Amino acid sequence: MTASASKPVVALAGGVGGAKLIDGLAQILGNRLTAVVNTGDDFRHLGFHISPDLDTVMYTLAGIANPETGWGVADETWSFMEQLIRLGGPTWFKLGDRDLATHAIRTEALRGGEPLSTITSQLCRALGIDANIVPMTDDDVRTIVKSGAQRLAFQDYFVRLRTEVPVTGLSFEGAVTAKPPAALADLMRKGAIEAIVIGPSNPYLSIDPILAVPALRAWIEGSEVPVVAVSPIVGGDALKGPAAKMMRELGAEASALGIARHYRGLVRTLVLDRADAALADGVRELGMQASVTDTVMKGEADRARLARECVALVRAELS
Amino acid sequence: MTASASKPVVALAGGVGGAKLIDGLAQILGNRLTAVVNTGDDFRHLGFHISPDLDTVMYTLAGIANPETGWGVADETWSFMEQLIRLGGPTWFKLGDRDLATHAIRTEALRGGEPLSTITSQLCRALGIDANIVPMTDDDVRTIVKSGAQRLAFQDYFVRLRTEVPVTGLSFEGAVTAKPPAALADLMRKGAIEAIVIGPSNPYLSIDPILAVPALRAWIEGSEVPVVAVSPIVGGDALKGPAAKMMRELGAEASALGIARHYRGLVRTLVLDRADAALADGVRELGMQASVTDTVMKGEADRARLARECVALVRAELS
Repeated sequence: MTASASKPVVALAGGVGGAKLIDGLAQILGNRLTAVVNTGDDFRHLGFHISPDLDTVMYTLAGIANPETGWGVADETWSFMEQLIRLGGPTWFKLGDRDLATHAIRTEALRGGEPLSTITSQLCRALGIDANIVPMTDDDVRTIVKSGAQRLAFQDYFVRLRTEVPVTGLSFEGAVTAKPPAALADLMRKGAIEAIVIGPSNPYLSIDPILAVPALRAWIEGSEVPVVAVSPIVGGDALKGPAAKMMRELGAEASALGIARHYRGLVRTLVLDRADAALADGVRELGMQASVTDTVMKGEADRARLARECVALVRAELS
Repeated sequence: MTASASKPVVALAGGVGGAKLIDGLAQILGNRLTAVVNTGDDFRHLGFHISPDLDTVMYTLAGIANPETGWGVADETWSFMEQLIRLGGPTWFKLGDRDLATHAIRTEALRGGEPLSTITSQLCRALGIDANIVPMTDDDVRTIVKSGAQRLAFQDYFVRLRTEVPVTGLSFEGAVTAKPPAALADLMRKGAIEAIVIGPSNPYLSIDPILAVPALRAWIEGSEVPVVAVSPIVGGDALKGPAAKMMRELGAEASALGIARHYRGLVRTLVLDRADAALADGVRELGMQASVTDTVMKGEADRARLARECVALVRAELS
């Protein structure tokens, strides 16, 4: 079943939760969907350029995401890692054998001067993905997690320290001078798109880095299309990852209402889970629309259903 | 059983045949053996620095060489390659999942400015290898195979073209200015070693690149210790690889006698296979000593036996 929209839809996303909604949107929109994906978590490891969020979105849309780990490729094998351990190599970041093929191709192409967006598009074509997956920028932007006097590279915080230290702030190195990839230029023209959907990703770690690219923020703030966000916080907690913990650490309320406050001025409509129905009025008091539904995506069907509901909200707003 | 020599023995080697003799020598000499290994076949592929001969010697001595392929690691898996094919990456050179760990560690360390010899020594320690494995140089030397007007990078000739084009000449780019690694300095002092053994490797592709490093050739030519070579040609053919074919193409006789002529002036004693016993007199007429034995190493025991015979030849010459 394909929705009847004729203009493209743009979705912003980071990791697993966002990737699931992107997958749902891709199921109903096909190549009329463009996912703009966080690259603030990108890093170099053992000589490889690793783009965790691009990979998660790409693998999810290709139907090869590893359901057990929440990252990497399904039917993965670990021979490389076993041998790496034997040879005394670094072990804190797990590299699956299949996953490595993505890293090797991407790294070699970057070394040859190709932009990350071009490489991503080639990988997507090879994986048979119809939707467009575009990194937020081809420039280097790095998320830095501050914990008191410490300034941690994202992977240090997320993988090595397992998000255990308290977060006191975030910064996105390089964002101020970063430009969106040329592939987004057409979509950034006035009247080019139907809507912007912000997935249930961590607002600090996945969405804010995208919004830290000045031209992307200006585009989204200045766009006259519906902007719909799905709350990543359900019943006061994140389904996955440190979003709720970080909100508390940063002095925000770890709830869908906290999310609404975070996105105020940018997002027109917030989609809340039924568990948070009582917060809908609070959201509306902030001047936003609130829509309550089941936001927890357990299977493929949930993804398409939630995506369809997001598109319906857009249509309702446009009609 | 350990031979009683007190001074170190140096062995020169390239690929599979050479590695087997090195393994035999390592079994009887332990850390009194230093293998100087060809790096003329080293190349970059998909961003990895690959050292085929170092790997073959290293894997053989660690007891993890893949007996089926003649290269790479035993119990190998191929998930990386499968995914690489799916993603449209280059497929002409096969990279096993375990093997990749070596390439990744080596490449990253080289990028960090470590010399190849230091990295090799660290890898050997991790693999529990007692003998010393030293690349012929830390500098870049590249074997170029000439075929008429064509100048082929070694892997182009060896893997992509499967040695099918006729060889009209060879050159070793960078050899003239290449220096031996510092790790060899002690062994290169007068009186430091007991003997030099040249393994049954391809003389053109494995040994000549080593001898093309001026200081190594000068050392071997000027050394007063026994220099023993094992013929890689048995019954007019190479046990493995294109050695015999190349000898014919380059106008030499594809026989142990051709090998003797090739090494004349450098090698004091040539070890021939029983199949070539009739050629022993011809070798002696060139002013070299000839020793006839079983040179085909089918199993581990053959390796140690042949190594012991080589060491015995050295002792006989010294006594």
